[in-house]
Amino acid sequence: KKITLLPGDGIGKEIMESAKVVLNTIASEYDHRFSFQEHAIGGDAIDRYGTPLPEDTIQACEDSDAVLLGAVGGPKWDGNPPHLRPEKGLLGIRKKLGLFANLRPVQGFSSLLHASPLKEEVIKGSDILIIRELTGGLYFGRPSERRNDGKEVVDTLAYSRQEMERIIEKGFQSAQIRNKQLTSVDKANVLESSRMWREIVEEKAKEFPDVKVEHLLVDAAAMKLITEPNRFDVIVTENLFGDILSDEASVLTGSLGMLPSASVRTDGVGLYEPVHGSAPDIQGKGIANPLGMILSVALMLRHSFHMEEEATEIEKAVNECLEQGYHTGDLDIKGGQKVGTKEMTQAVIENLT
Amino acid sequence: KKITLLPGDGIGKEIMESAKVVLNTIASEYDHRFSFQEHAIGGDAIDRYGTPLPEDTIQACEDSDAVLLGAVGGPKWDGNPPHLRPEKGLLGIRKKLGLFANLRPVQGFSSLLHASPLKEEVIKGSDILIIRELTGGLYFGRPSERRNDGKEVVDTLAYSRQEMERIIEKGFQSAQIRNKQLTSVDKANVLESSRMWREIVEEKAKEFPDVKVEHLLVDAAAMKLITEPNRFDVIVTENLFGDILSDEASVLTGSLGMLPSASVRTDGVGLYEPVHGSAPDIQGKGIANPLGMILSVALMLRHSFHMEEEATEIEKAVNECLEQGYHTGDLDIKGGQKVGTKEMTQAVIENLT
Ligand SMILES: CC(C)[C@H](C(=O)O)[C@@H](O)C(=O)O
Ligand SMILES: CC(C)[C@H](C(=O)O)[C@@H](O)C(=O)O
Repeated sequence: KKITLLPGDGIGKEIMESAKVVLNTIASEYDHRFSFQEHAIGGDAIDRYGTPLPEDTIQACEDSDAVLLGAVGGPKWDGNPPHLRPEKGLLGIRKKLGLFANLRPVQGFSSLLHASPLKEEVIKGSDILIIRELTGGLYFGRPSERRNDGKEVVDTLAYSRQEMERIIEKGFQSAQIRNKQLTSVDKANVLESSRMWREIVEEKAKEFPDVKVEHLLVDAAAMKLITEPNRFDVIVTENLFGDILSDEASVLTGSLGMLPSASVRTDGVGLYEPVHGSAPDIQGKGIANPLGMILSVALMLRHSFHMEEEATEIEKAVNECLEQGYHTGDLDIKGGQKVGTKEMTQAVIENLT
Repeated sequence: KKITLLPGDGIGKEIMESAKVVLNTIASEYDHRFSFQEHAIGGDAIDRYGTPLPEDTIQACEDSDAVLLGAVGGPKWDGNPPHLRPEKGLLGIRKKLGLFANLRPVQGFSSLLHASPLKEEVIKGSDILIIRELTGGLYFGRPSERRNDGKEVVDTLAYSRQEMERIIEKGFQSAQIRNKQLTSVDKANVLESSRMWREIVEEKAKEFPDVKVEHLLVDAAAMKLITEPNRFDVIVTENLFGDILSDEASVLTGSLGMLPSASVRTDGVGLYEPVHGSAPDIQGKGIANPLGMILSVALMLRHSFHMEEEATEIEKAVNECLEQGYHTGDLDIKGGQKVGTKEMTQAVIENLT
């Protein structure tokens, strides 16, 4: 299997090393062959090649079975013009590869739940999968421009029916293999695009009679994620709503550094990255939490390579490490042992083998 | 002072009675004259006049010094076509009156804070004012339509520079009379409108050198509201972001039923309403919590009538009721006394006089 590695910025390089170590272990345990190609993206690519998404990188990703990404961005490039911002690399590669479905699982680890900002009785038992549309909506709609001598500005929320259908279908399919509950989030009392979205959800619901569907307005969803996180199973929504709600959801369990994400399309090709950012403040110190990245590797094995057993092994190993008390500085485990990126990775490897 | 009352739907009528009782008490205590005119809006107006916002209602509001609104909406009208939805009445009156600034204070009451979904150490000390732009952006931008035989759909996020300037200015002014901290929320890494917004914030910042400004992306803001609610003072943002974030913030203290809101323009005219909805499930039972409405009356006295003392009196009286243990069924006070809408209102009156 060909995997393109895009370490990116900040702690991206350090945690990408952990990903490689884990993949090499899986390869030898299960007799798989993974080949790695490393390429530049984000601020790193701006510094080296003058663009956040070099042609070489695009080409390599297009020729791969899956892509692993560390993180992009940092204060160094904050003042850059829009087309020279690290995020453009991320937005660009999503669009180029047609990765229309962003999967963001949010699930607590019992040894870490005490760090949640929510009361234990509120967060307990939560297990949410947020599915966000990733290549349409306000992010890519045109026109997006100043008008009338800078006195006016417009952005455009545009979707085709087909773009909505495929992501909504992904929502139903995911709910079907989980707890059969789908929450569709929109703003149908205001937006025409949301009214079309809701119609399509109703249509698709007929093809999935075993899935229970509810519609929730985005403002109500933002409330209920906090007051009743454990009422949700799968949430499906458009790009910007998904951006906001998935980030909101990511802090509920109190361990953002643990969360993986997958951006996929229908043929199985996908890009996998931890939810946390590039954390420039701890870059190079060897203390970054590699578990979000390692769990993203698990998602890659599951979704892109259909290696369910291997994926589950990794997830179990991560959980065991935590049970054994190993944690990086961003986490806290009572009576546990604080370790760096390499030791944490080593602990996962030991539980794997 | 001429006040238009728009009870609307569900529990709107019941809590509007409480507002009247409180205003009459203030009138006789302070020797003010308030005249009331009641008009229809929302579902009630649809049922009686075939439109969610009758001309009469608009006229009455335009001739008033302030408007009080109960709540609009309910399952009865959920199947209606867009132009016959209760919410259209609310959106319409905001736009007609040019109420561009929505003020949403979020503050905990110490006797109720135990009901927060957040841990006490997280929520303690939070005191946030969210200022949401209310008459622009995706809510009103055109085109908003299906295209190409229903195969495509667009909504438009449109703002003029002047619309942004006045709400951002409101943000600075509000921060200046509070804790001098302004958080401007946008999505400047993706949206052109957000980049213009950010430029205007930077410009205005020069006119308010005593206010500390920070920029936060909307996804990061959705996270930080949960993890560090007490780091915020004033938050200013555009319409849809404000809709989502203010509703998210409204559940943090655990007593949504207590929260008031104000929608104002520069000349002081405003519309005041509780944040909670029409709660059709408890309509007519006499158990609705009137305190969100009563605190909205206080906001009206302060912002539209410059009756600071009277407003503070009401706020104090509400607080005293809670300290005395009075609460409606949506709240819970240890060792307290559960009462209905009328008794709760009476308790406020007794603390007022
Ligand atoms: C970096 C940014 C453009 C991106 C987004 O908004 O999609 C990020 O917030 C994310 O969610 O992956
Ligand atoms: C009813 C709806 C149109 C409205 C809005 O989104 O503005 C409501 O959610 C609000 O926040 O007052």
